[in-house]
Amino acid sequence: MTPTTPAATDPATARALFRDGLVTPTAGWSPGWTQANLLALPREDAYDFLLFAQRNPKPCPVLDVIDAGDVSGPLLRGDIRTDVPLYRVYEHGTMVAETPDVTSWWRPDLVTFLIGCSFTFEAALLDAGVPVRHIEQNRNVPMFRTSTRCRPAGRLTGPQVVSMRPIPAELVATAVRVTSRYPAVHGAPVHIGDPGAIGINDLDTPDFGDAVDTRPGEIPVFWACGVTPQAAVMESRPPLAIGHAPGHMVITDARDTDYLVP
Amino acid sequence: MTPTTPAATDPATARALFRDGLVTPTAGWSPGWTQANLLALPREDAYDFLLFAQRNPKPCPVLDVIDAGDVSGPLLRGDIRTDVPLYRVYEHGTMVAETPDVTSWWRPDLVTFLIGCSFTFEAALLDAGVPVRHIEQNRNVPMFRTSTRCRPAGRLTGPQVVSMRPIPAELVATAVRVTSRYPAVHGAPVHIGDPGAIGINDLDTPDFGDAVDTRPGEIPVFWACGVTPQAAVMESRPPLAIGHAPGHMVITDARDTDYLVP
Repeated sequence: MTPTTPAATDPATARALFRDGLVTPTAGWSPGWTQANLLALPREDAYDFLLFAQRNPKPCPVLDVIDAGDVSGPLLRGDIRTDVPLYRVYEHGTMVAETPDVTSWWRPDLVTFLIGCSFTFEAALLDAGVPVRHIEQNRNVPMFRTSTRCRPAGRLTGPQVVSMRPIPAELVATAVRVTSRYPAVHGAPVHIGDPGAIGINDLDTPDFGDAVDTRPGEIPVFWACGVTPQAAVMESRPPLAIGHAPGHMVITDARDTDYLVP
Repeated sequence: MTPTTPAATDPATARALFRDGLVTPTAGWSPGWTQANLLALPREDAYDFLLFAQRNPKPCPVLDVIDAGDVSGPLLRGDIRTDVPLYRVYEHGTMVAETPDVTSWWRPDLVTFLIGCSFTFEAALLDAGVPVRHIEQNRNVPMFRTSTRCRPAGRLTGPQVVSMRPIPAELVATAVRVTSRYPAVHGAPVHIGDPGAIGINDLDTPDFGDAVDTRPGEIPVFWACGVTPQAAVMESRPPLAIGHAPGHMVITDARDTDYLVP
């Protein structure tokens, strides 16, 4: 494999590197190409999840569904079993493995959901002059379980998970305006300014990812997060589920601009 | 029931009138409240349809799903079996009844899909100074089967159906801009200007609804249409399906502005 930098790597090349064993968070990789959250479930649980996603579109915007029996699709011209840098495998809601290759766990009845990721709108925030702290600090975005419940669907239920970005007060309106133009990748914030109101007691201890610094004059802004499906899996305990490790996303063959409206 | 005009009727009152036997197209009723296409299918076909909708979001934007066993939900605080002015019942893809009450056809395993309708953006078009011919002419909107195929899902497949509005050439860009802000109700046009390119040979003989006049200097503009699910039903022949009669929509308890982005 020719040496390359993450920012100069196209999706097929990035996936080949991951398939060959590279394990890395994907922030900064293949800029302009859409990264996605992963959830694979047995066919018998797929309707409940698809309905859960329809009822909770802000945390669970489905970008594409790979049918049972298939391991690739229009949004991923690769192999979903090997092309993500790091996976998490759940049995009955408990994580039983974190592994760079889930071929040995795969079953022919698994349906794969690719779910939008807020990485898509972060380039647009930066372009608009809105700082993105976890990129500045080279950390994973901080994510929190909230006291907001998702609308249940069949056997699936769980809390809404959010990502947090501290935004200078004078730029909060800009951040809302920019991200609202990406409804397929979480869209506008779900909460601004009062962590306690959504059940978050301490911004320094995220449930997933890393804490980041909030500076004087900055407001914590919360967006619905694609880890929500995995939180629902943990709570609802389907027999088998496969997701990505937080921050280690699926790099798809879609472009961020495909999800820009209007 | 107190006499009222369609434009002064709130959704609950409109639905009560339909429940009591009034059969009428719903254009102009309860302005500002969202009207929806209806499709009810047995639970065993529901996953295929929900996936079909996910893969074809422009013609099939799902606004809400009423679970099997229920006949109302957050978007319809009434009774889905009686509150639509006119229904169509299909068995194995063939229409077997057109009736104002489907209580006798209903089964406890039917899942109800409420699907966005372009009526939502027509008020916004009028507000922007874009004429809407079928409203001017007091007709149903003309709808056409196209040669564009939907992405299949399981057993479901079919043609994309479009609605057509003739727009003065100098206002086509405005019509695109306005409707693109409503992605949950068909959004931007799918085709502009060349009916033959999407398999439409004669604008005067629509497959559903009524023909309208196209005047000199006007361009035919085509939006994805919520009759697409019924066209898929006709082609894919599930054992039972219940839809609305074209133009005789579900008047929901959602507001049009709920679907405006950004």
